[in-house]
Amino acid sequence: MAEFDPEAIRVVACDIFGTTVDWRTGVAEQVAEIAAARGVDLDAGGFADAWRDRYPPSMQRVNRAERDWAYLDTLHRESLDELLDEHGVAHAFDDLARQELVHTWHRLPAWEDAVEGLSRLRDRHVLVALSNGGFALLTHLVKAARLPFDAVLSAELARAYKPAARAYLTAAELLDVEPARILMVAAHAWDIDGARNAGLRTAFLERPREKGPHRTADRAADVTSDLAVSGFRELADSLGC
Amino acid sequence: MAEFDPEAIRVVACDIFGTTVDWRTGVAEQVAEIAAARGVDLDAGGFADAWRDRYPPSMQRVNRAERDWAYLDTLHRESLDELLDEHGVAHAFDDLARQELVHTWHRLPAWEDAVEGLSRLRDRHVLVALSNGGFALLTHLVKAARLPFDAVLSAELARAYKPAARAYLTAAELLDVEPARILMVAAHAWDIDGARNAGLRTAFLERPREKGPHRTADRAADVTSDLAVSGFRELADSLGC
Repeated sequence: MAEFDPEAIRVVACDIFGTTVDWRTGVAEQVAEIAAARGVDLDAGGFADAWRDRYPPSMQRVNRAERDWAYLDTLHRESLDELLDEHGVAHAFDDLARQELVHTWHRLPAWEDAVEGLSRLRDRHVLVALSNGGFALLTHLVKAARLPFDAVLSAELARAYKPAARAYLTAAELLDVEPARILMVAAHAWDIDGARNAGLRTAFLERPREKGPHRTADRAADVTSDLAVSGFRELADSLGC
Repeated sequence: MAEFDPEAIRVVACDIFGTTVDWRTGVAEQVAEIAAARGVDLDAGGFADAWRDRYPPSMQRVNRAERDWAYLDTLHRESLDELLDEHGVAHAFDDLARQELVHTWHRLPAWEDAVEGLSRLRDRHVLVALSNGGFALLTHLVKAARLPFDAVLSAELARAYKPAARAYLTAAELLDVEPARILMVAAHAWDIDGARNAGLRTAFLERPREKGPHRTADRAADVTSDLAVSGFRELADSLGC
């Protein structure tokens, strides 16, 4: 692949869960609240971790065509049902409560550097969200967290989840830009690898606190990417914004 | 159809060309500039009118499946090629100049009430663009005019042009909302009719100057819609924003 030239970048595409928003804090806080309202005592952080753990295998089943396309909300609901059973608390959460739990993923806090860094990036680039979340989920999340994207793109539009190449290439087609003119920003090695394999340029954004205090997040030293940064402000610096 | 209840509306979907931006002024000014740079004397306003006139028949051919899906940029380019021939100025515009002309539709001025009215609407509703323009075109246009949408939606995502029901219903599916909870805002009777036929609620927004000084734009008196307003500020007032 040619040397990385920041001037060639037209579009900055940002992963959302973990990269732009702090899913663990957001989900755990809301789960704790919803559980408490039902008199259920739950380790909400551990519950959020266990829920997130089920996400990669569930989307892989879609990408391997072991099942038809299913929205992230559907995958979240299925893994939630299993988790509540395993925790022996299924009785305490009716359908409405489970919908409420699934919707915790629609409203998550931005990392503290996100809004400022994204605003600077937007001044010089087309700035989009590119996530495995559904289009509706992402639209709600981006609105609630006031993230200044120019447009929302979702794996749903490709009906293939990242890291499948089609998820990235559909974004390039919709934006009418060569893949090599898109910089994919993500905090996960698998996303960076998927983007690179699809011909995009990549920026690994390290989020050491993504998985909470007891787990290790992906680290720049272990990831092959064009850029490695500690947050959106540093990314804006790197791109001269 | 049930009585219109503003409280039931979750999403405000806005047409773009004519409704939110002043395509005629924007295209005419840019065409005049590009033509002048090539030493061509052209009635730019009349040229913009004639170009726009070819748009409904060109998109109808797609909707009637008389041809495969084609982007609005492609339709614009085809009708441009015909127009330049008819004006006897084809020789003065090479491929690059024609691309430049097609791109005039990517950068158009907002009507003076749009940014303020849209900002107010966005505070209480999910606010999206829903246009026959391609996703890339709309993303560029919305960015350049600083229109505060939460998300960009395009007929391209349905591969069917408004007023085909599929263009509106795909938007409802992507936003995970019942069609009756979307308010379609448009300055054209055909768009309002298409939205109503698809089960959306409708707001006709009158733009008497849309077609320039010599032509008559659609008028509220001739259109059946849930609301009729003179601009985005009045729409925000009507919805209690």
